This record gives sequence, structure tokens and C-alpha cells, in this order.
Amino acid sequence: MEREYASSPLDSAVNELARLPGIGRKTALRLALYLLRQDEMQSLQLGEAIIKLRKEVKYCRICHNISEQEVCEICSNPSRDSSIICVVENVKDVINIENTRSHNGLYHVLGGLISPMDGIGPGDIEIDSLASRVAQGGIKEVILALSATMEGDTTAFYIFRRLASADVKVSVIARGVQVGNELEYTDELTLGRSIMNRTPFNDTFSPK
Amino acid sequence: MEREYASSPLDSAVNELARLPGIGRKTALRLALYLLRQDEMQSLQLGEAIIKLRKEVKYCRICHNISEQEVCEICSNPSRDSSIICVVENVKDVINIENTRSHNGLYHVLGGLISPMDGIGPGDIEIDSLASRVAQGGIKEVILALSATMEGDTTAFYIFRRLASADVKVSVIARGVQVGNELEYTDELTLGRSIMNRTPFNDTFSPK
Repeated sequence: MEREYASSPLDSAVNELARLPGIGRKTALRLALYLLRQDEMQSLQLGEAIIKLRKEVKYCRICHNISEQEVCEICSNPSRDSSIICVVENVKDVINIENTRSHNGLYHVLGGLISPMDGIGPGDIEIDSLASRVAQGGIKEVILALSATMEGDTTAFYIFRRLASADVKVSVIARGVQVGNELEYTDELTLGRSIMNRTPFNDTFSPK
Repeated sequence: MEREYASSPLDSAVNELARLPGIGRKTALRLALYLLRQDEMQSLQLGEAIIKLRKEVKYCRICHNISEQEVCEICSNPSRDSSIICVVENVKDVINIENTRSHNGLYHVLGGLISPMDGIGPGDIEIDSLASRVAQGGIKEVILALSATMEGDTTAFYIFRRLASADVKVSVIARGVQVGNELEYTDELTLGRSIMNRTPFNDTFSPK
């Protein structure tokens, strides 16, 4: 599809934009024509931000979250509880959990989930480094905050067994009826779990 | 919203991406994290394509379409009928009309429509240059291919009167029932127009 729009800079911009997920050729063309109508500064800033993004973003040596320094702001923050590690699949999960403000411990970003179908084994994600962190001591609890999918469950089981010999409590985030969802439309598996894992009324409803 | 994601390169990439139309902060974050997972080359190519886009795209001196040269490929193509000019609002309209392969003449890109509400008058768009092109002679027909909106109609009327003294046929693209649309759901104005502007059966249905 070369030289489609009578201008090779436009062509290559459209081609590159269309490689992004969820952006088709029509949207890519719309975005490119939008940039052409805007001030040159905007394209310059966007282009440079994208180039810098991949060049300059580093990953925390300890938790593998994105970071500007060798150790990220969360790991180096003395007011966070360093005895609790929340294990997540990716960087976005860290952002989402941080936004809930319900976790004041540290994180460990696996960078994926065990998925034999996709050829991803335990050695391909950051499980060894998690085990080392726990082995170093000082960790009381590891919270597994993984997707409620087969891959998430597989990974959780693997980590649970891997940490079995360590003196650490391993917990899993609660599964149950989604807040705002009607019981009628909740699937049986979730409903069953939510009954099994019921909590004292006061834990859920009492104002703290 | 500074320093939201614990990494300033990520922050600025998200901020810049979120300035694009139709891309909110959530999508911008998704795109940025996607780029972080890809090969560094992809971010480099995307960033450079965006910077080059605004720097290198030129506009045709004659028709104001985007172009690599001073005169665009359509204007300089000897096999196109230079006696017919199709007047459009923007570059995207040229691409769309070219894709229909039903116009073999030249174009004239106005770069907008007259819109008193937005403070855009006839002097703000490329109407003077259209009048000069027509005054230079050799033009038999000017096709107004503008939106069927108040702004499009205003602009069409203005151009029609502006070219009234010139020896040129001014035509307007047909309005009527959209191909594929049911009559029941066609608005009255369009339906009325489509009856007024009815065409001989053979013109529409005979295989050429």
C-alpha cells in the first residue's frame, strides 16, 4: 500500500500509526491529517516523546516496575510497608492498584503470566527474582493479584508452591460479585466463590 | 496531572498521545505501554514519521492538496482533465473522491468552509485562488463537492456568485437517498430533493 496519499511523509506516518493496537488505517489517516492542521510544535513534541519513551524508560532493579532511577519510587519510599509484596502481571496493574490506594506495600511485576499455549514458562517471567526477594527475608506476606483466568490461576499456583518452603503468608485477592453488578447476572462460579469466601458483615459494610 | 506514572518519559508520552483527537488518557496509556513492550525500532520509526510528517509535507501551489513537490501529482498529471475542477473542503475529501475513481479532473482544496459562527469568512479559505484559477481560462466546469450542511451550502452559494461572471459551468454533487438506505428512514428534505433531482432510469441503472 505504498504512496497512497500522494505524499510519502503522510504515507509513512499513516503506516506507522496504523501499527498501533486499535488504530486502523482510517483512524491513522485522521490522526495524521489532524497533526498536519496543528502547530508544528505539537508533532515535534509527540514524536520526541514517543522516541524518548522507549529509550529512557528504565525498569526497577527490584520490582521490575517502570522507573526513572535504578530503584523505583515505590521501592525506595520509606513510608511504604516493605514487608508486603503485591505480585502483578504488568506495569498497568501497578498503576491501577495504586489508584485504588488500598495497598501500601511494594510490588513485583512478573511481566507476563505462565501460558503453555503461548510457550511462556515460569523461566520467562520474573518468578526467580520474586523467590530471591522472599528468600532475602523481611517479607511477611505475598499478595497474588493476578487475573482470574486459567493463566492467572496457573501462575498463582506455581508461585504458591515455589514459596511453600519460605516463611511467608501467600494470599490471593478476593473474587466475588463485582461491585455494582446484579446477582442475577453473576456467573455461577463467581457466585459460588463469593459464598465460600463470605466475610463478616462488619468487614464489608462498617464505616472505618 | 504531572508525574502520574512514576516515570516522566511515560508521563510525557501519555500526555502527548492524549492530545490526539479521540484518544483519552486510558487509551494513551495503553498505547504507550504497548510501545514499551515492542522493539525499540518501532517507537523510533513512529516518532520520526510523526516529526517528518509536519516538517516535510508540502501543499500544492495550484490546488492546495498535500504534495511532495511544489505542484502535486494530480495537477501535474497530463492524463487528467484540466478543464474540470472539483472543489472540496479538505485533503481527506480528495483522498475519498480519488478512491471512488469517478472524477478524472483536478481539485481545489479550500482548507475549510465559510462559517460566520466560527469566525471563518471567505477570505480565510482558498476562494480567491480558485477565482484566479478560473479567471486564467481553460476551465469548463467547477464541481462543488461540499458537505450538505449550512456551512457547505453557504460556501457553495458564495463560490457560485463569485464565479457568476466567469464563463464556467458550476455544478453541485447530487443529493438524494444514500445507496443502501431504506426510503422509510430517509429524512423528508433529502427525499424531497431526490424527487426534484430525479434522473432518467437509464442514467442510474444501465450498465455502462
